[in-house]
Amino acid sequence: MDTHRMMSLAALIKARDAGKARPELMVALCRDAIARNDDRIRAFTHVALPSAVPDDGPLAGVAIGVKDILDSFDQPTTYGSPAYDGFQPRIDAAIVDLARRRGASIIGKTATTEFAFFSPAPTVNPHNPAHTPGGSSSGSAAAVAAGMIPAAIGTQTGGSVVRPAAFCGVTGYKPSFRLLPTTGMKHFSPSLDTVGLFAAGVEDVALLAELLTGRDLAVPEGAPPVDPAGIRVGLYRCAQLETADPAMREALEKAADLAADAGFDVGEIGEPEALAHARDAHKTIQDYEAGLACGPDLARFRDQLSAILVQTIEAGQAIAPSEYDAARRLVKHGRNATSALFREVDILLTPSAPGSAPLGLQTTGDPRFNKLWTLMGTPAINIPGFTNDAGMPLGVQAVARFGRDKTLLGVAAMLERAFQA
Amino acid sequence: MDTHRMMSLAALIKARDAGKARPELMVALCRDAIARNDDRIRAFTHVALPSAVPDDGPLAGVAIGVKDILDSFDQPTTYGSPAYDGFQPRIDAAIVDLARRRGASIIGKTATTEFAFFSPAPTVNPHNPAHTPGGSSSGSAAAVAAGMIPAAIGTQTGGSVVRPAAFCGVTGYKPSFRLLPTTGMKHFSPSLDTVGLFAAGVEDVALLAELLTGRDLAVPEGAPPVDPAGIRVGLYRCAQLETADPAMREALEKAADLAADAGFDVGEIGEPEALAHARDAHKTIQDYEAGLACGPDLARFRDQLSAILVQTIEAGQAIAPSEYDAARRLVKHGRNATSALFREVDILLTPSAPGSAPLGLQTTGDPRFNKLWTLMGTPAINIPGFTNDAGMPLGVQAVARFGRDKTLLGVAAMLERAFQA
Repeated sequence: MDTHRMMSLAALIKARDAGKARPELMVALCRDAIARNDDRIRAFTHVALPSAVPDDGPLAGVAIGVKDILDSFDQPTTYGSPAYDGFQPRIDAAIVDLARRRGASIIGKTATTEFAFFSPAPTVNPHNPAHTPGGSSSGSAAAVAAGMIPAAIGTQTGGSVVRPAAFCGVTGYKPSFRLLPTTGMKHFSPSLDTVGLFAAGVEDVALLAELLTGRDLAVPEGAPPVDPAGIRVGLYRCAQLETADPAMREALEKAADLAADAGFDVGEIGEPEALAHARDAHKTIQDYEAGLACGPDLARFRDQLSAILVQTIEAGQAIAPSEYDAARRLVKHGRNATSALFREVDILLTPSAPGSAPLGLQTTGDPRFNKLWTLMGTPAINIPGFTNDAGMPLGVQAVARFGRDKTLLGVAAMLERAFQA
Repeated sequence: MDTHRMMSLAALIKARDAGKARPELMVALCRDAIARNDDRIRAFTHVALPSAVPDDGPLAGVAIGVKDILDSFDQPTTYGSPAYDGFQPRIDAAIVDLARRRGASIIGKTATTEFAFFSPAPTVNPHNPAHTPGGSSSGSAAAVAAGMIPAAIGTQTGGSVVRPAAFCGVTGYKPSFRLLPTTGMKHFSPSLDTVGLFAAGVEDVALLAELLTGRDLAVPEGAPPVDPAGIRVGLYRCAQLETADPAMREALEKAADLAADAGFDVGEIGEPEALAHARDAHKTIQDYEAGLACGPDLARFRDQLSAILVQTIEAGQAIAPSEYDAARRLVKHGRNATSALFREVDILLTPSAPGSAPLGLQTTGDPRFNKLWTLMGTPAINIPGFTNDAGMPLGVQAVARFGRDKTLLGVAAMLERAFQA
């Protein structure tokens, strides 16, 4: 696949604002692209019937795919589970409503793993259909990568935005915790569940974030978005780094070199012990909360849930509150350590995944490089640009301090240009 | 009404464990009490059909009323709104499922204000039907106060557990944020929405909390739950205190005197400036989040929402993100100030409401003494015991440091005995 065929949200909006593309046509273009490609990619679980396209609003004409873990009042919402076959929520999830209020067209629901957990969706990787697109936001990443839509919404509890974005060679942005609302998503672990965004490139995702939230997040045109000399970029030497594929480690080193060439103040930074411990707390927190949040499903639909999901919910229900509390204390210490870390550095560079998308569709890959940042609530983004020898995308992840989404997006935009130059 | 007719959860469980009350009979007792009283009190929006009562589980035989803002798969869930007339969720809220897993019988849904916000439920105050029972957990508080059930579940976003408990003369316990799961509640302001518990007295609610969560929270029998000499109790001199009714201020002074008589280390403590500012941030945070969380309802059901709810959601959607961020910073400073405050004191005493339940059913009273503690995520409890000249309950609120729920419940149990002696 040629990633040049991806749709740029920024370019589409520019064309619309210049009177060169009517909103209706922009959405029709996506509808055609889905009709041509989705039999092969299987990114969508449902495509909306054609309907009136808003002429007003900053996202007028923007066709958005919504991960099927988020409620939509006008389209079935199955949470990737046969237990919810044909389920039709009464109202939208808050993020879906927000997108509509801005004029976006919800063109369809994108495939997710079961309850955004483990068991894979049927979606394939647009770069090579024998490989996973990653998960759990499999369809959102693949639909953007295959050029069917300019933007998609996903969620991340472990690594479900950044990892599929890396595997599919698109930009996936997990904002600071609570920047985008989670009401109306199927919760798995409410203190981790985070809504994120997918688009072709960093400028596209930043523009989408600005137009959705009304926050100053877009990357300005023309002048560089940040002064690189004033930005300290740290290659993050966590213990996990040794477990990444050689090609991934090479890409990360290259990324740091290119960042230095681009004028950033680049160094290396080790992982504080408190963060290594916090990472280990992720599973306890996720499973304990899933025991509560998904307990009602276990009670009603046990026979329709996968064995691994049943096992995870039951294991979560068996975790002692004292163990959960201890894990939360590790998180608290980790957050203090994260604050201290971001006094020494502005941006961390770390892999988005251990390597490129694994062969096969049985699993969606490993979140080991993502879950710490979900737990810390810090903004993180996959910057596309690198590939391995087989031509599969290799994603580099940038992370910033909580609330510094604007800086993260600006730096990521400059790095993306440097990576692709 | 004679509050001695309230059902004690602790006494019921003791009788059950001694073989003196079978679970089925315990639930039947409640069913009868509801049939006799609820035409008058209007605490229930729905009463479950008789069904098999579990024999196993720590809450076997305990009939629980659930605020109708929380989903139940087997009973209609209307969120206090005609927009959800006849709505039947697919699964339980997490807290409802948890109660069932412990053996409880969900005997019915209790009345709530519209979306747990402003517009009142039809419930009356069991102590005087011309007075409000408080809100938004109106039915949960009134059902316990009227002796129809031994326990109920509610929620608090401003003051919706502690205030109705105070007005109805029962114990209302708002635990530390996240101690009880909110998944499956109708969210209004997710960073504030907190699940809480109602029962006749402090020991009852503490036992309920322990049996639900598996945490060590029950008040031990026999020996005093805490050594009062080691506990610093501060009468909280916030600016709002001057605005409380004279009878309420008198009750609070009396409460402090009785605490001293009971051996606690009692003093007075002023309000840090950062907390006064944080209190002012509550409305911005609540409304901004309601603009997102209830936006999907506004889009779909505008004509079926009350004017004040429509106005609040729209106002929330108009709040600039920068204003919300500024409010969140005030909260952060407030939390630091709260931590500092709880280095000087273990328990704060403050009114649960400005006075007793106001006359009339048009509003549910004022959360000015509650919303700060919801915002801080600290555990808070209404301790019943005082009444005004008209015999209406006057509630004293105790507040502890985040995570110190065990201490709060132990102290509150001792204070309750002191107040009632």
